Amino acid sequence: MKKILNHPDSIVKDMIDGYVAAYSDYVKTSSNPRVVIRSNPKAKGKVAMVIGNGCGHEPIAMGWVGQGMLDANAVGDIFAAPPSDLILEAIRESDRGAGVLLLISRHAGDVINGEMAVELAQMEGLNVEALLMYDDISSAPKGKEEDRRGAAGTTFIYKLVGARAEEGASLAELKALGEKVRDNTRTLGAAVAPGISPLTGKAMFSLPEDEIYLGMGVHGEPGLKSIKLDTAQAVVAEMMEAILDDLPYHAEDEVLVFVNGMGSTTLMELFVIYNEVATTLKAKGIKAYKPLIGEYITTQEMAGFSISLCLCQNEFKRLWDAPVSVPFFHR
Amino acid sequence: MKKILNHPDSIVKDMIDGYVAAYSDYVKTSSNPRVVIRSNPKAKGKVAMVIGNGCGHEPIAMGWVGQGMLDANAVGDIFAAPPSDLILEAIRESDRGAGVLLLISRHAGDVINGEMAVELAQMEGLNVEALLMYDDISSAPKGKEEDRRGAAGTTFIYKLVGARAEEGASLAELKALGEKVRDNTRTLGAAVAPGISPLTGKAMFSLPEDEIYLGMGVHGEPGLKSIKLDTAQAVVAEMMEAILDDLPYHAEDEVLVFVNGMGSTTLMELFVIYNEVATTLKAKGIKAYKPLIGEYITTQEMAGFSISLCLCQNEFKRLWDAPVSVPFFHR
Repeated sequence: MKKILNHPDSIVKDMIDGYVAAYSDYVKTSSNPRVVIRSNPKAKGKVAMVIGNGCGHEPIAMGWVGQGMLDANAVGDIFAAPPSDLILEAIRESDRGAGVLLLISRHAGDVINGEMAVELAQMEGLNVEALLMYDDISSAPKGKEEDRRGAAGTTFIYKLVGARAEEGASLAELKALGEKVRDNTRTLGAAVAPGISPLTGKAMFSLPEDEIYLGMGVHGEPGLKSIKLDTAQAVVAEMMEAILDDLPYHAEDEVLVFVNGMGSTTLMELFVIYNEVATTLKAKGIKAYKPLIGEYITTQEMAGFSISLCLCQNEFKRLWDAPVSVPFFHR
Repeated sequence: MKKILNHPDSIVKDMIDGYVAAYSDYVKTSSNPRVVIRSNPKAKGKVAMVIGNGCGHEPIAMGWVGQGMLDANAVGDIFAAPPSDLILEAIRESDRGAGVLLLISRHAGDVINGEMAVELAQMEGLNVEALLMYDDISSAPKGKEEDRRGAAGTTFIYKLVGARAEEGASLAELKALGEKVRDNTRTLGAAVAPGISPLTGKAMFSLPEDEIYLGMGVHGEPGLKSIKLDTAQAVVAEMMEAILDDLPYHAEDEVLVFVNGMGSTTLMELFVIYNEVATTLKAKGIKAYKPLIGEYITTQEMAGFSISLCLCQNEFKRLWDAPVSVPFFHR
């Protein structure tokens, strides 16, 4: 395996140590070295936003702890949901008395451990709610949205709900806002080539040289189908048709757009892909508002990308533009 | 070649179109579609900062056009310096009457075409100066610094000089500042695996599975030597010794640090690498100030990274922290 690391057992510790040393003006570890929290937490009155997730997908979610997004991240092992007691610690440590919203990206382990953590926290008398996030249209059919996986479109929730939390909204309002963002969001991804697991040193899946796979999950979970490698124009056209039909999105709608790179797909490609997305939206009479483009939810050096749309409602544009100060979110 | 693109002839146009569509609040193309300039240029009185560079290394340099960094970028073909007349157009279009500083990262084509553009601009009566940037310690020995290549450490010049330009400094002051930043900066990189040229579809170089190469240039140019793949600790220790000895940097110095990813090296690795850099600096009694970590100067999906240090002088920390508003520079 050609990666620049130390022993497999120390990867997570080394990574967190490096991250916290680099960004001490944003974050610190709490009493537990696997809980990354803001170094200057807000005073009482702000609802805390917390997530637990397996690492290996950087910059998410550690890179989003800071003003305008997360209050704490419970860092699990590589590609593994953190245990419920670790998530519980992140909840405890970040609670400033106004309650905690635990974000859960819908994957089996994250749901089980996250819901258990919420139950344990509530038994301790803490005011905690879970928000289930799902957006990947390839993982369950229309009408079964609540069975879908969490994918890159969850980013809209982190940013919009995070901004509103900063403004002092209540836990109930934030949960409702998160559900509204989720219900207006759709994502579809395309896997191009596998990443290498830092634990096994092996490729995480395989694909023929002339094929890409629509809708694969971040760990190689099955999605829609494989298609022949084609031009950006043809690939994006097929993906956009599926996404636009799913909500559906209509002419005269305005949407937030996120083109996420999964690891080794170049920014050159992401800009070419965005150009096709913008062209498609324009042709449909749909307006794109300040897209986000870059590598945010990765699977090591996997090649691939996803397209996420979020239909703008009420204050979505204002919250999208609201100040954010974290090391790895920027447009 | 497994990339998501259209025809090779349209890559640069498609990429710029996508970029400008996405970031129209930051940039636009000038009358020439290969010149990316600020969409809201400053009024008279500010010296313009311009660079021409071959594309394929995104986000540099297009991603740095905006407040606090560049005024314009002349975008060459993939891995090819832009012709002098294109650079001249970028100079003309960005000049607001206070002069233009043309940054040239020292590579043969960039120097020839950039110096020619400056000469042509001066013949037109424009007030233009060139700043040669070089920092790669592997490309020429100590004592021959001016023969070295430009590498990731040039980033300190873009940021620090860009910040001072925003404050209204004169062309002469900015050129002197740029030289001072350059002369206090040293970079060494390690290549791990090749990127794929979007033009040929071929790997740009080859390395044995158990070797990495110290000091390779961004296009595969020769550097120091190949070494066996080893732990992050061992690799970083060897690189840091070479960097620290070159200026040299001393105990009680304070340095800006930049760990750049070349394409497919994961952020997980970059944080582990930064942890080793921070540990080495601490052991030497050198203080690290707000490091920059991420993929900024890439060579497609090349795996590898570089470490750059800049010895803090006078206002360097203040300028490092000064406001910047571009799509792809953030800490």
